[in-house]
Amino acid sequence: MNKVAIVGHSTTKFRKLAEKSIYELACEPSMDILRSSRIPADKIEGLLFSSCSHDLYGGAIASEMLGVNPKITCRIDNLCNSGTAAITTAYSYISSGLCNSVLVVGAELHNSPGSKLIWDVSRGNFTSPIYWASVFAKMHMRKYGTAEEDMANIAVKNRSSAADNPNAMFNKPIALEDVLNSRKLVDPIKLLDCSALCSGAASVLLVSEDLARNLDVQPIWIDGIGQQTNCASIAHAIPGIFEKGASKLAALYAYKMARLEPSDIQVAEIHDAFTIMEIMAYEDLGFARAGKGASYALDGSITVNPRGGILGSGHPIGATGIAQVCEIVCQLRHEAGIRQAGSSNVGLVHNLAAAGTSATVMILRSE
Amino acid sequence: MNKVAIVGHSTTKFRKLAEKSIYELACEPSMDILRSSRIPADKIEGLLFSSCSHDLYGGAIASEMLGVNPKITCRIDNLCNSGTAAITTAYSYISSGLCNSVLVVGAELHNSPGSKLIWDVSRGNFTSPIYWASVFAKMHMRKYGTAEEDMANIAVKNRSSAADNPNAMFNKPIALEDVLNSRKLVDPIKLLDCSALCSGAASVLLVSEDLARNLDVQPIWIDGIGQQTNCASIAHAIPGIFEKGASKLAALYAYKMARLEPSDIQVAEIHDAFTIMEIMAYEDLGFARAGKGASYALDGSITVNPRGGILGSGHPIGATGIAQVCEIVCQLRHEAGIRQAGSSNVGLVHNLAAAGTSATVMILRSE
Repeated sequence: MNKVAIVGHSTTKFRKLAEKSIYELACEPSMDILRSSRIPADKIEGLLFSSCSHDLYGGAIASEMLGVNPKITCRIDNLCNSGTAAITTAYSYISSGLCNSVLVVGAELHNSPGSKLIWDVSRGNFTSPIYWASVFAKMHMRKYGTAEEDMANIAVKNRSSAADNPNAMFNKPIALEDVLNSRKLVDPIKLLDCSALCSGAASVLLVSEDLARNLDVQPIWIDGIGQQTNCASIAHAIPGIFEKGASKLAALYAYKMARLEPSDIQVAEIHDAFTIMEIMAYEDLGFARAGKGASYALDGSITVNPRGGILGSGHPIGATGIAQVCEIVCQLRHEAGIRQAGSSNVGLVHNLAAAGTSATVMILRSE
Repeated sequence: MNKVAIVGHSTTKFRKLAEKSIYELACEPSMDILRSSRIPADKIEGLLFSSCSHDLYGGAIASEMLGVNPKITCRIDNLCNSGTAAITTAYSYISSGLCNSVLVVGAELHNSPGSKLIWDVSRGNFTSPIYWASVFAKMHMRKYGTAEEDMANIAVKNRSSAADNPNAMFNKPIALEDVLNSRKLVDPIKLLDCSALCSGAASVLLVSEDLARNLDVQPIWIDGIGQQTNCASIAHAIPGIFEKGASKLAALYAYKMARLEPSDIQVAEIHDAFTIMEIMAYEDLGFARAGKGASYALDGSITVNPRGGILGSGHPIGATGIAQVCEIVCQLRHEAGIRQAGSSNVGLVHNLAAAGTSATVMILRSE
């Protein structure tokens, strides 16, 4: 398997309204990478567009707007983990030898059709993701004694981190009482337990080892990729969610491929679309034992969601997984400024979709 | 680069109305492959869904409906070459070592949103593909003296072949006069110069060399993949379409990867969404010299579009490229019955999108 490196990363400011088209938005971070990387636009051999919008042919359209003429283009949709699905695909194009360089761009507008899970008849009219978050939270509270305060702690932590991230949607810290007193939407989930859909775009540039060695930038290597799709509907997702959920399996595959253990991870971006999801992820990723996710949030050794996570940064669906990877690349290059998490050289990204029915875990490493 | 084989193929009957959901349609050929292949459903490690519908999360949904639990899933859209984009992606997942087996399924309903090219402001209100086909036909006629009869010949040939394909939408041969007397839609394109959007699904199963060697089925190897995206809009596609179009570049890359020449090809599926496109493709693929595509249709040595092509089979957008690959696999296994094209062992698939702005060429080989 040929090695693959990330040599460029950029995100837009995440905000409620973009006031531009999804493609103009997609061009922002992509142009930033093309300007700053040492690779001329005509050497970009692949372009993947990650989005849940209804716009078709996005790979070719973004290519034309960016002035690149790639061999391979297409649009990737896998709901909330579209972004890491696209990066996985770019990885495989390079590792298999089909391409030497792939630009991956994710973009979404705040009113994306990806915000409703309408295909799943087992949900009835409960198409909003908050309903599955509510079920999972109740299950975790019942089984492990997790409290509403434990979930609120996650929101406080991530909003606090977001205050150090100029591209985050939310830049003001909040207090525990703010979360606990925020409007209860679906018991036990309150407004500030939820991430907010928003407009935003993020891009990364992946290249082959040969190309990476010839560039004057610090490469960040993709050492492990784990993915798992267990099902698509919540009725199938609920049983065994704590024991054999897609995140847990994806993590196992990623650690195995990278030949690393959870204890080797120093910094992580975790899919905190709802506060309970970060608590569950600590356990799924092996950072904490089963039922101990809530306390891990207070005394864990790994820096989690330094950019503010999805709770603090906002959730532009098709861009989210790519923005997570951007942050870990930034951290491993020690370019994160006031939010730099020590001298980390191994990081993890966890991205999931639709009640955790599918998940991606990636492990990145600097040299 | 690890070798990748196709070990299963199936298509539905293509028809105007499916009278079922896109996912039920997708399950038809996929279940056929799962039933007939020697690979248990729980060994399918990837599932790619190719479609231009607005339905999101199709990879996971199709997985759940089929009872498979793949590692990797996503939906791929690249308009009319979504199907071969998905097969290329499956190839790279296997060749890179991320998966050992990937089921690729394409499905579309006749009223797909992929039938309009609405993003391209350079088209004005001319969003239907027939407008670019008209421009290309006029250009070819002016430059090379191609006649309306030459285009009509292609329709006659492919409708005749479709009569031998029980899964084709059109099963009755037509005469040259039928085409020439059919309603002129956009000069010089007449009704019978056009393929018809329809409902349909097609699936292929790709596996690693190790897995292929352990199955009791004849593997068909993917020896060459060439892809090129030149642009997305017709204003950029027109200049140089005969000299450096995406199809021509994709063919060069595919021949180079397979270490073959056009003269090595024995059977081909060519993207004949309009009759002029098959004439242009003969030239782009190196089967005929520039301007000689029309005469190649009459006396060429390669069997082209034995299933009836898109003109005879119908055009279920996201399934088309996969159905083309199914036919070549069938031909190379010598399983095509009355439409078998001799004892071919090298075949080619040519699939393009949106005024030829992007194209895929694949070269397949039996042992």
